[in-house]
Amino acid sequence: MHIASPYLLFIGDATDQFAIKMARGVADWRPELCIGEYSIDGCTVTTGLEKLDIRQAATRGAKSFVLGFANSGGVLDKKWLPYILEALDNGMDIVSGLHDKLSDFPEVAAKAKAVNRQLLDIRHPKAEFITGTGVKRSGKRLLTVGTDCSVGKMYTSLSLEKSMKKAGIDVDFRATGQCGILIAGTGVAIDCVISDFLSGASESLSPDNSEDHWDIIEGQGSLSHPAFAGVSLGLLHGSQPDALVICHDLNRDHMRGLPQSQVPSIEETIKLNLEAAKLTNPNVRVAGIAVNTSSVSVEEGKTICARLSEQFSLPCVDPVRDSADSIVAALV
Amino acid sequence: MHIASPYLLFIGDATDQFAIKMARGVADWRPELCIGEYSIDGCTVTTGLEKLDIRQAATRGAKSFVLGFANSGGVLDKKWLPYILEALDNGMDIVSGLHDKLSDFPEVAAKAKAVNRQLLDIRHPKAEFITGTGVKRSGKRLLTVGTDCSVGKMYTSLSLEKSMKKAGIDVDFRATGQCGILIAGTGVAIDCVISDFLSGASESLSPDNSEDHWDIIEGQGSLSHPAFAGVSLGLLHGSQPDALVICHDLNRDHMRGLPQSQVPSIEETIKLNLEAAKLTNPNVRVAGIAVNTSSVSVEEGKTICARLSEQFSLPCVDPVRDSADSIVAALV
Repeated sequence: MHIASPYLLFIGDATDQFAIKMARGVADWRPELCIGEYSIDGCTVTTGLEKLDIRQAATRGAKSFVLGFANSGGVLDKKWLPYILEALDNGMDIVSGLHDKLSDFPEVAAKAKAVNRQLLDIRHPKAEFITGTGVKRSGKRLLTVGTDCSVGKMYTSLSLEKSMKKAGIDVDFRATGQCGILIAGTGVAIDCVISDFLSGASESLSPDNSEDHWDIIEGQGSLSHPAFAGVSLGLLHGSQPDALVICHDLNRDHMRGLPQSQVPSIEETIKLNLEAAKLTNPNVRVAGIAVNTSSVSVEEGKTICARLSEQFSLPCVDPVRDSADSIVAALV
Repeated sequence: MHIASPYLLFIGDATDQFAIKMARGVADWRPELCIGEYSIDGCTVTTGLEKLDIRQAATRGAKSFVLGFANSGGVLDKKWLPYILEALDNGMDIVSGLHDKLSDFPEVAAKAKAVNRQLLDIRHPKAEFITGTGVKRSGKRLLTVGTDCSVGKMYTSLSLEKSMKKAGIDVDFRATGQCGILIAGTGVAIDCVISDFLSGASESLSPDNSEDHWDIIEGQGSLSHPAFAGVSLGLLHGSQPDALVICHDLNRDHMRGLPQSQVPSIEETIKLNLEAAKLTNPNVRVAGIAVNTSSVSVEEGKTICARLSEQFSLPCVDPVRDSADSIVAALV
């Protein structure tokens, strides 16, 4: 699967920033892939990109119409179908990270066929995977792992990629979720893979490479999350990481979505992940800690990172407010 | 999903016992569900059940025609289609644990519709699952876990169920693989569930129950298997077991299918599983050890079990050669 760029990011009538997470992710990290955003009456948020309608975007060469909004359940509301059909008529592929499949809407499927354009349901892996082999692959790999879900593993991974590029390192960001796939233009939505192939799909995501090449693999879930630890473990084993970066969000009272579940400490998270990772790479080590400090002041954030850095004898940064340069410097 | 009994077990022209694992499992553990076996020219193995052809079995009331053979890849060979069509014509549902779906063969789908019979692809879960919640359920649960795949977790689970029934305990065997599903008549093939729903599907398998009721949950894979540990962890977290039984096969040089991977010790297996299980049930404990001693003499097997029992201060049995009575006695 390859998503053609440039993208027109469709954010509909969204009224909060969380609802346009997909669009924001790609606008933040790959503005060069985006030609603009398209919103309709009632929308109160923006990615900051230029506002264009479908015809304008097509004239400027837009190749993909990206559904940049999300909702719990991943439902594709029928009210968006006219916009999707218009984008197809204007020569664009359609990209969706929703659970509902574009191809399950007969009028969309028929139109895409008629105008010879693709429907890309990036949450639904199309590849045929094999079960994991555990066989060591060449090249180097870093996986971001978290104390919880949604603590900033994708942003940390992209920040690490940016720092590595700046340092002249041969590096690829490997996407494992729909937003990351949009950013990378390719990848595997690992939580949508049949369980039997979890490790195998994860292995296929970072194939053999040259010895000094780094894959920065986007982590998923958390080994301490009662709902998603299985996904995290399969990804960890298949990734065979040489290095882990521990991701943490200061502002978390309980595990995401589970009020009765405690967030583990950074120390526990390091221990759990190192022990599990050794099964497929005995030489794994922790390269650093990435903290989302957005809930406190910049100054307070810096103090917290400095304290954690001393406590664990590891580089510790907020990879969005600062950069991941210090983690990369210590790693290579 | 519910599989109607009695079954006619179709073993084709199989020539080794491993190839008819599905048929043997149900013949060994639920002979009362089986009306007989049906083999064709060239078959050199048997389940030990009475040999019947399709018409004879139908006359005696067979409700389901079970494909009792397996192969790597789970391919449904077209040479079996005439037998499947004949069974449909004789009023039976068709049950398959293969990867290939019965419903993907147009002539089979058409015939099943015409005669109003079901095609049950028991490896492909049909239920809609939700993601895990981690919320504690009432009743008691035991999960069998293994040092490796295919060490006897299903046979151990069934042996435990048998011992509990004998002791007058209210108990259900909960199947998580296609052979177990055939035996229980229901269940979820957990390694065929979409990864995101691993824990949620596992939770749904052993719902709230009365306080003194036990669910004996069939384990899958091993936390130490590089390909399948994610499945094992999701099942472990979703099962919320009060008790674990550690399953081990004496005759194992390396992890199944992976010559470079070492089999973990029983000690490591206990440690790994207890640590992980505590996330969703802090009161979890190990109830015993089940060893497949079939590679040594009965006497030697007994000596090994006695030694392990002493080493770990736990009941240790071969649940097929002996029974699981001592584990159940110590547990309740």
